[in-house]
Amino acid sequence: MSFAPIYLDDFRPGQKYVTARLRIDADSIKAFASAFDPQPFHLDEGAARASFFNGLSASGWHTAAMTMRLLVESGFRPAGGIIGTRAEELRWPRAVRPGDELEVEAEVLEVRPSASRRGHGYVKCRTTTRNQNGEPVQVLVMNLLVEARGARGS
Amino acid sequence: MSFAPIYLDDFRPGQKYVTARLRIDADSIKAFASAFDPQPFHLDEGAARASFFNGLSASGWHTAAMTMRLLVESGFRPAGGIIGTRAEELRWPRAVRPGDELEVEAEVLEVRPSASRRGHGYVKCRTTTRNQNGEPVQVLVMNLLVEARGARGS
Repeated sequence: MSFAPIYLDDFRPGQKYVTARLRIDADSIKAFASAFDPQPFHLDEGAARASFFNGLSASGWHTAAMTMRLLVESGFRPAGGIIGTRAEELRWPRAVRPGDELEVEAEVLEVRPSASRRGHGYVKCRTTTRNQNGEPVQVLVMNLLVEARGARGS
Repeated sequence: MSFAPIYLDDFRPGQKYVTARLRIDADSIKAFASAFDPQPFHLDEGAARASFFNGLSASGWHTAAMTMRLLVESGFRPAGGIIGTRAEELRWPRAVRPGDELEVEAEVLEVRPSASRRGHGYVKCRTTTRNQNGEPVQVLVMNLLVEARGARGS
C-alpha cells in the first residue's frame, strides 16, 4: 500500500487513524526482553507466574516499539516522517500477553506552527494501543514534528 | 555482578545511579528499525542524509530500549523489578548516531506509598541517557511500582 504524505496544514484536531493488527507471541516477547529488558517476568513463564504480572508479559518498550511499527505501516503518514520529539504521557494500563493482537488508534489533539523551525510545526497525538478485546494496553501522548506544505521548496 | 534489591522504604529523593555504557552501531540501528520503525532515516545512510536528521539516526524507541537494558543491568534494582507504570515525560533532545556510546543516570525524584496496592508504592525517577560527549539524547520521567519491605510476607 502507498499513502500520500499529510502536511501540517492538513491536520485537524479530532482526526483519527486506525492501524492494522499485529500479533505477539511468547517467542517474540522473550527475544525482545533478552535484547532490551532481561527481567524474569518477560523471559520465563515460571518466574513470570510468581511475579507481579502473574504470567509472561511483554516489556512496555516492546509494546511501544510494536505501536510504532503499526503506525509507520498505516495511513497515518505525516510529511517528513513520524518524528516524535516529546511525549507528555506514556502509560501501560494492562499487560500484553502471548497471543494478543494489537491495534493502534491515533487521534490528533492539537496542531501548531513551530516558532523556531521554519516550515515545520507540531502535531500532538494520542495513540491508544488496544488488544483483541478492545482493552487499552498503552496510551501515549506525543508531539510530532511535521513539515508544512511547501517547506522543502522555500 | 549481583545487587541486592532496593525496597520502597530505602529509596530517597536525590539518590543517583549510573549505568555501564553501551555502544550502538549502524547495523543495530538498522536492525531495530527494520523490526519496529522502518522509516528511511533509520534504515539507509543516503536517505538519512536527505532527511531532517541529516544522517543515519537511531529510532527513539531503540534509545528507550537501550536505556532500559542499561538500567536492568545496573545497580538500580528496585524490589520486584523495574516496573514502569506511567511516564510523565519522554524527550529525545539529540539524535543517536552510529558509534555513540550511551550511559544512563537515574535520579530518584519522589517516593510515595500506593493507596490501592498494599505493600507497594511508587518511585518517580528521571533517567537521563547521555552520549560519549555527555550530551543528553533521552530524558524520561517514569513512575515505577516498587515493593515495600515485608510485602511478600504480609
